[in-house]
Amino acid sequence: MTQHPTLGIGLAGFGTVGSGVWNTLHRNGALITSRTGGGVSLEVERILVRDPNKSRATTLDADPGLLTTNWRQLVDDPKVEIVVELIGGTTTAFDIAEAALQAGKPVVTGNKALLAERGIELFALSRETGVPIHFEAAVAGGIPIIRTVMDSFVGNHIQSFFGIINGTSNHILGRMTDAGLTFGEALAEARSLGYAEADPTLDVNGWDAAHKAILLATLAYGFPIDPGAVHVSGIEQVRPMDIAFATRLGYAVKLLAVIREHAEGGVELRVQPSFIPNSHILASVHGVFNAVAVNSDAAGESLFYGRGAGQDPTASSVVADLVEAARGARHVESHRGFLPYRETGALIPVEDTATSYYVRFDVTDRPGVIADVARILAERGIGISGTHSPVNPDDPDADFVDMVFLLHTCPFGRLQGALAEIEALDCINSTPVVFRIETLA
Amino acid sequence: MTQHPTLGIGLAGFGTVGSGVWNTLHRNGALITSRTGGGVSLEVERILVRDPNKSRATTLDADPGLLTTNWRQLVDDPKVEIVVELIGGTTTAFDIAEAALQAGKPVVTGNKALLAERGIELFALSRETGVPIHFEAAVAGGIPIIRTVMDSFVGNHIQSFFGIINGTSNHILGRMTDAGLTFGEALAEARSLGYAEADPTLDVNGWDAAHKAILLATLAYGFPIDPGAVHVSGIEQVRPMDIAFATRLGYAVKLLAVIREHAEGGVELRVQPSFIPNSHILASVHGVFNAVAVNSDAAGESLFYGRGAGQDPTASSVVADLVEAARGARHVESHRGFLPYRETGALIPVEDTATSYYVRFDVTDRPGVIADVARILAERGIGISGTHSPVNPDDPDADFVDMVFLLHTCPFGRLQGALAEIEALDCINSTPVVFRIETLA
Repeated sequence: MTQHPTLGIGLAGFGTVGSGVWNTLHRNGALITSRTGGGVSLEVERILVRDPNKSRATTLDADPGLLTTNWRQLVDDPKVEIVVELIGGTTTAFDIAEAALQAGKPVVTGNKALLAERGIELFALSRETGVPIHFEAAVAGGIPIIRTVMDSFVGNHIQSFFGIINGTSNHILGRMTDAGLTFGEALAEARSLGYAEADPTLDVNGWDAAHKAILLATLAYGFPIDPGAVHVSGIEQVRPMDIAFATRLGYAVKLLAVIREHAEGGVELRVQPSFIPNSHILASVHGVFNAVAVNSDAAGESLFYGRGAGQDPTASSVVADLVEAARGARHVESHRGFLPYRETGALIPVEDTATSYYVRFDVTDRPGVIADVARILAERGIGISGTHSPVNPDDPDADFVDMVFLLHTCPFGRLQGALAEIEALDCINSTPVVFRIETLA
Repeated sequence: MTQHPTLGIGLAGFGTVGSGVWNTLHRNGALITSRTGGGVSLEVERILVRDPNKSRATTLDADPGLLTTNWRQLVDDPKVEIVVELIGGTTTAFDIAEAALQAGKPVVTGNKALLAERGIELFALSRETGVPIHFEAAVAGGIPIIRTVMDSFVGNHIQSFFGIINGTSNHILGRMTDAGLTFGEALAEARSLGYAEADPTLDVNGWDAAHKAILLATLAYGFPIDPGAVHVSGIEQVRPMDIAFATRLGYAVKLLAVIREHAEGGVELRVQPSFIPNSHILASVHGVFNAVAVNSDAAGESLFYGRGAGQDPTASSVVADLVEAARGARHVESHRGFLPYRETGALIPVEDTATSYYVRFDVTDRPGVIADVARILAERGIGISGTHSPVNPDDPDADFVDMVFLLHTCPFGRLQGALAEIEALDCINSTPVVFRIETLA
């Protein structure tokens, strides 16, 4: 196995996502190398910027000598082996991708508009040259839905997708639902919070979601899709009364992308504001989060949920594609299976892990039992947030009752010590039963 | 590019999952070949069975000549290039995997116990031989969590996993919650429905989930984990009163696997019955479904949801691993990027797509307006399930009001025709606003 062949990257675009990629590679580069069995080491060799004199975040210590304003210099640089296109748009971005493929350099892009509108040309060139285009970052930011559809579901006929794939729209609809805001108020708030772009047109009119849906459908069904044939409507017309009506009927209002293959042939593809049942897991997708529910003939129902945009989530997907591109590069022979990459590591003893708790005791009811238990807990510094006994009020004179304590956060070992002491009391009839209370944070 | 090199598979185990793999390859084999640009064509060349005379489902038309009861015959068969281990257990399964790796044949397995307990030996052999082990099917059935952690999150430090990764336990807890069943009743029901194995010990005592959690932690943190050091408790002690108590406090009761890297170093890993907030998306994971929530430093919060067991979902993951193994086989040169694999395909015109609808009209209030709208809808055969007007009761004498109709399922084109006619009425002041009502089925 070749050890640590460094792969040179050309980063076209050094804005939000581009600098996120830079940061991620610097923060986690060594981790990536060890996880790939020493097979993949990535190095940014060229950065395309619009204005080399623009001041950049001080966290980015990119050598000014890497910067160029001429994209040909980046693509033609012999040290650049993989080209990352993050400039957006469908003109220069196309030229960069085309030139890279022609030069035999894999392309990684997050540009959904480019692929939805000009993917036919680029995929044809990819086939002709044998050089891949990777685009995980183009759909749903940090959610690995592209790889899931292409690789994990390669053996599935996909029956449908239901996607919440525009975080701005979802955030606006959520605020209209939770706070009763009008569309205009919620949009203004989203802009002030940075959840909407300066020009949010493509977000609220449904076309950002439509571009992503076109890519998903292309992956699942394999044929080129004309964006002009896709029915798209956005959320501009949604009013608080619509949401109130939906809520009353047990629905959530979502901008929903629907892709569905009909049994009799043909693919349905549309983006529209929709009422969806509150009982469906998609209705639990709040704020700027995205989710894609997939129904397929082998895997069945599944759902992929996460951050659909933002610097770091999108960078996560670009970096995953970079590793994939690097593995595919001819001179890297990388072990494709899992290999342990640390010799040793420590499991934290469960005694040292802390949460709050629910504990149930089976007690013989006698005066002083609560006092005894509470004293033992107090002696060990374990706070009680609630207690309830007897739990079964149907039989107030029962000798054996269940007694429940809710306990503040403490190390499990401390709780175990207290419970051992409590279990030894003559009024405790069996080993106490413990449930963790998890905040999931 | 080599066209259609057929890769020979040895299928060790022909039970539920093994026959699911057979079915999936036969149903979707051509799709797999076209999706991989003609790069991957898979053929089962040998099948290891316990009893060759056992009658098999009539849907399985496996040539009896493929069957063998001797695993060495399977591994040693020169036509077998990839070995799929689906027999379970940690002894013969280990021998098969070991022999396959030594013979240079990639191993695909769904055996979580094997890898959690003897993975150290097998991964060492995989490193030594350079031959990969793939095991997507070992964790959470049809959910591609292994590939997500290994590939999609390769550039992420993973901070935590929270997993509902035992469907039997989740189903039992759900029935105790929804129907007030005792643990024993819910377990008996799960067995009668086929949601619990004849011997459900490892499901309900937490060890099935623990094996999966050990694998996830090994992937994320890279070091071998001793199962003996993991704290595991199951759901046998859960009582309806615990669930009632949790419900009253706004929690759901779940068997939760928690894996968390502490900032100061070390990894927390435990499986315990837990209270989790109803507001968290994990609380919406019902029945036999599994889900894994992942927090990582670049992708942020994400969640992967789907079927955690069962013939077809597990086969989906085995087949994905087979394609991955095939791509890695030396003589297959497969394009790793996406290539459109159908020349043409049809988008279904949006006019032909049917759902039910919510429609809002902005009307000038005059006698007969509802009658006019209802007549036009009736003439086109569109059923009305509800109507409401005026929606704003604060101003009962307003001239302009919002009128809402809920309409039964019909093709969108038929609705559009009706709405065009309605919009032409003199009392309708603007284009009607339409929301789809989606069942998500």
